[in-house]
Amino acid sequence: MESYRGFLALLVSALPVGFLSVLFTLIWVLHYREGLGWDGSSLQLGPVAAASGGASFQAIIVYRLPWTWKCSKFLMKSIHAGLNGVATILAVIALVAVFDFHNAQSIPNMYSLHSWVGLAAVICYVLQLFTGFFIFLLPWAPPSLREFIMPIHVYFGLFLFGTTIATALMGVTEKLFFVLKDPAYHSFPPEGVFVNTLGLLILLFGALIFWIVSRPQWKRPKEPDSTLLKSNCDTTERMEGDIAISSGNNTDRSDSELNNEGATRKRNSGLDDVGQRSTM
Amino acid sequence: MESYRGFLALLVSALPVGFLSVLFTLIWVLHYREGLGWDGSSLQLGPVAAASGGASFQAIIVYRLPWTWKCSKFLMKSIHAGLNGVATILAVIALVAVFDFHNAQSIPNMYSLHSWVGLAAVICYVLQLFTGFFIFLLPWAPPSLREFIMPIHVYFGLFLFGTTIATALMGVTEKLFFVLKDPAYHSFPPEGVFVNTLGLLILLFGALIFWIVSRPQWKRPKEPDSTLLKSNCDTTERMEGDIAISSGNNTDRSDSELNNEGATRKRNSGLDDVGQRSTM
Repeated sequence: MESYRGFLALLVSALPVGFLSVLFTLIWVLHYREGLGWDGSSLQLGPVAAASGGASFQAIIVYRLPWTWKCSKFLMKSIHAGLNGVATILAVIALVAVFDFHNAQSIPNMYSLHSWVGLAAVICYVLQLFTGFFIFLLPWAPPSLREFIMPIHVYFGLFLFGTTIATALMGVTEKLFFVLKDPAYHSFPPEGVFVNTLGLLILLFGALIFWIVSRPQWKRPKEPDSTLLKSNCDTTERMEGDIAISSGNNTDRSDSELNNEGATRKRNSGLDDVGQRSTM
Repeated sequence: MESYRGFLALLVSALPVGFLSVLFTLIWVLHYREGLGWDGSSLQLGPVAAASGGASFQAIIVYRLPWTWKCSKFLMKSIHAGLNGVATILAVIALVAVFDFHNAQSIPNMYSLHSWVGLAAVICYVLQLFTGFFIFLLPWAPPSLREFIMPIHVYFGLFLFGTTIATALMGVTEKLFFVLKDPAYHSFPPEGVFVNTLGLLILLFGALIFWIVSRPQWKRPKEPDSTLLKSNCDTTERMEGDIAISSGNNTDRSDSELNNEGATRKRNSGLDDVGQRSTM
């Protein structure tokens, strides 16, 4: 119960920071810059990128929400995949937008480090999405393959989230140096201070999310092998024989909870038992 | 043994990437820029920052080197603290250097997002160093306090390492936009492509290090409570009664291996038992 409160406290701290980041992005675009548009002259991809980041954050966090633990693993995987799909589509829209914008303005593409890292991140994100879909969502991959890929999948997802934050910070840096000429960035104009603050908010948001997803005690409890298959959320309470999550075996359980799609969740059991498992 | 080989393979992959990053930084400064110096006109803080990053990387990785597991925890803590101390000193030198450089050139300080995040990272690094020194290295902190602080200390150390990488990438971005005027950055000059590649190398290095430090199976085995106190490295082999690392308790053991400074290490035991523990 204390662990649950700690999780909620962190989540409730992270959400306003995330919303504030999106709000700051919108204020930057709508108040300080030329507003939204896709006419080749005033396009701002910030909000699209922010929305993509938001979907990505939800996809990362979704397994850790205790009120979803009663839902089947298959349903949660589908939500995870769906949110990542939305994030990917938004990221591709943002990419197409920025290429269109550059072409309309005769600005060369793909010369900055921001663009290199950003494009690499989007390509890896798409690869990660397909890997997840074929290996974890579809039922055909052998358990040994899932067990081998799972830690890589988890790590790579978090690494890409971190890379996306670094890309955003580089993007903010290069945009401010481009647009703040009179008054110049180095004269501390309100826009510069405001957008620097946005950068700090993005970083703080990332810090809180990484903390939440790397606490072993807040991980979704392991699916028991012996329970019923079910594909929706329900309120089924404890079942006899569900002892897998409290056994003291020595494998990293985050890597082995792969083969139980649709199993009914015990809602409250095992909260004290997941401490030895880790996402990372 | 297989796990040990995997660790070595990753480490041997990461080291050349790290060395290449330092080499690229030196080539950038010595070949493309004005070289090294501290005369207020030609200072380049890249190599100092790279050296600081190198010390920081060694501090992060040091507990995971299997050949150090025979050494006492106290000795390893001292090495960890010493390397972080060196990294902090180099980071402060780099900060003073850049302030001196800016003042000599009449360039304002602390206006860019890179400078905000960089200064915040250095301040947090110093705080982290003092916290570690007083709580974990000195023997007076109560076990409950150590247990409470340890996951925060580990997380914050890794978060600062990630923030340092993001700061470096922002620094590279802003420097390239500053200095590449003729030919311009957007015309793909050799320096731009070269330094973008340096950025990718830094990112790849970070990815490899984060992978290595987040694998539970490569973590330094837990200290047994019942062994002798000793402060140096030795080759003491297995001792009877050292079963703590293979018991099936449900706490996150990374948070509880705090109170055994100087205990003699079992050299090879428990390698199969650490899988359930996690650094993060």
